[in-house]
Amino acid sequence: MKLNKTALENLDRIDRIKIINTVSGIKPGNLIGTVDETGNTNVAVFSSVVHLGSDPALLGFILRPTGEVPRNTYANILANNSYTINHIHPAFIKNAHYTSAKFDLGVSEFERCGLTEEFIEECKAPFVKESQFKMGMKFIEALPIKQNNTLLVIGEITSIILPDASFNNKEYINLEEINSVGISGLNSYYSITKIADHPYARVNEVPKF
Amino acid sequence: MKLNKTALENLDRIDRIKIINTVSGIKPGNLIGTVDETGNTNVAVFSSVVHLGSDPALLGFILRPTGEVPRNTYANILANNSYTINHIHPAFIKNAHYTSAKFDLGVSEFERCGLTEEFIEECKAPFVKESQFKMGMKFIEALPIKQNNTLLVIGEITSIILPDASFNNKEYINLEEINSVGISGLNSYYSITKIADHPYARVNEVPKF
Repeated sequence: MKLNKTALENLDRIDRIKIINTVSGIKPGNLIGTVDETGNTNVAVFSSVVHLGSDPALLGFILRPTGEVPRNTYANILANNSYTINHIHPAFIKNAHYTSAKFDLGVSEFERCGLTEEFIEECKAPFVKESQFKMGMKFIEALPIKQNNTLLVIGEITSIILPDASFNNKEYINLEEINSVGISGLNSYYSITKIADHPYARVNEVPKF
Repeated sequence: MKLNKTALENLDRIDRIKIINTVSGIKPGNLIGTVDETGNTNVAVFSSVVHLGSDPALLGFILRPTGEVPRNTYANILANNSYTINHIHPAFIKNAHYTSAKFDLGVSEFERCGLTEEFIEECKAPFVKESQFKMGMKFIEALPIKQNNTLLVIGEITSIILPDASFNNKEYINLEEINSVGISGLNSYYSITKIADHPYARVNEVPKF
């Protein structure tokens, strides 16, 4: 099946959203935690967290148009330059999913969705206690993507919390052991199973194919 | 285990790269296909493809510093404003992985890594024939991320090719059925298994937690 530009433009709005949200492949399932200046907390599911670089340690994520609905997450990040990124695990997928409902300002998704705030040392924003792999983040910059009025929010990792066993492994961290979850589209959640490791690819070690 | 900013800065370079490349969670496994003005093709594995929006249908991906090594992918995209994004499947993970070796200019990773070029209609760039879910892309813009000299390359989807069975399903496209692959870190590949679907989250339908 091939959909060309005309066919894509002629899809009805919902089919289009469903399809286009799936084409990039599996997406990481994360919860972003924030707090406003008066201590009201907020947590929301995001599937657009992306690695930007290791030195400095930078992650990005995409924020929908700021004018569309109240965007507590972004206002809170601007208020204190702090947020957290927390992996979702199978045990609380449903809780995580419902953080996407458009609750009134002042309603904490932590409370409404049965997730637990956790404050750790110098990070102002709340972590998700139920998550085993999470990062404290310092806001650096938001790059406007003018084609659709979204933002690439760039932050630096200021702390990482993960299970001792994962860190002690001299090889790569195994996301299957940590039970990290993937998302496709807007509504589907996936577990992940490690099936292959390959070494750093040097030209003189490339096998014959 | 908690790593604060000082601990992160004190990690040795390789440990740091391994860890920071894993913290965002599972990443989509894609091959990006391009061609230069004289017809030399190029294909390279990317784990940073990210959904930017559905209308217009935009995807982004992150490109490493352009000065570091020859970046055929980017030069080719600029040459003809065209590229393809192709899902990786388990049957050709090894082939896909070795496209990351730094081959000399003029060497096609298609040939060297045992992948097959496929040219479809108006898209100048080559698709990967072995991939069942792939997009033709028109280059729109590259946003500089000045903190680490990377680029967010933004493109519009001009065609989508996917299995008939996936498209005919009125629900969301199932990435497990398509056998799409996830990546963590730089070297680990994961299969995915759908474990939950949840409806669009309306405030008045949020369950009690």
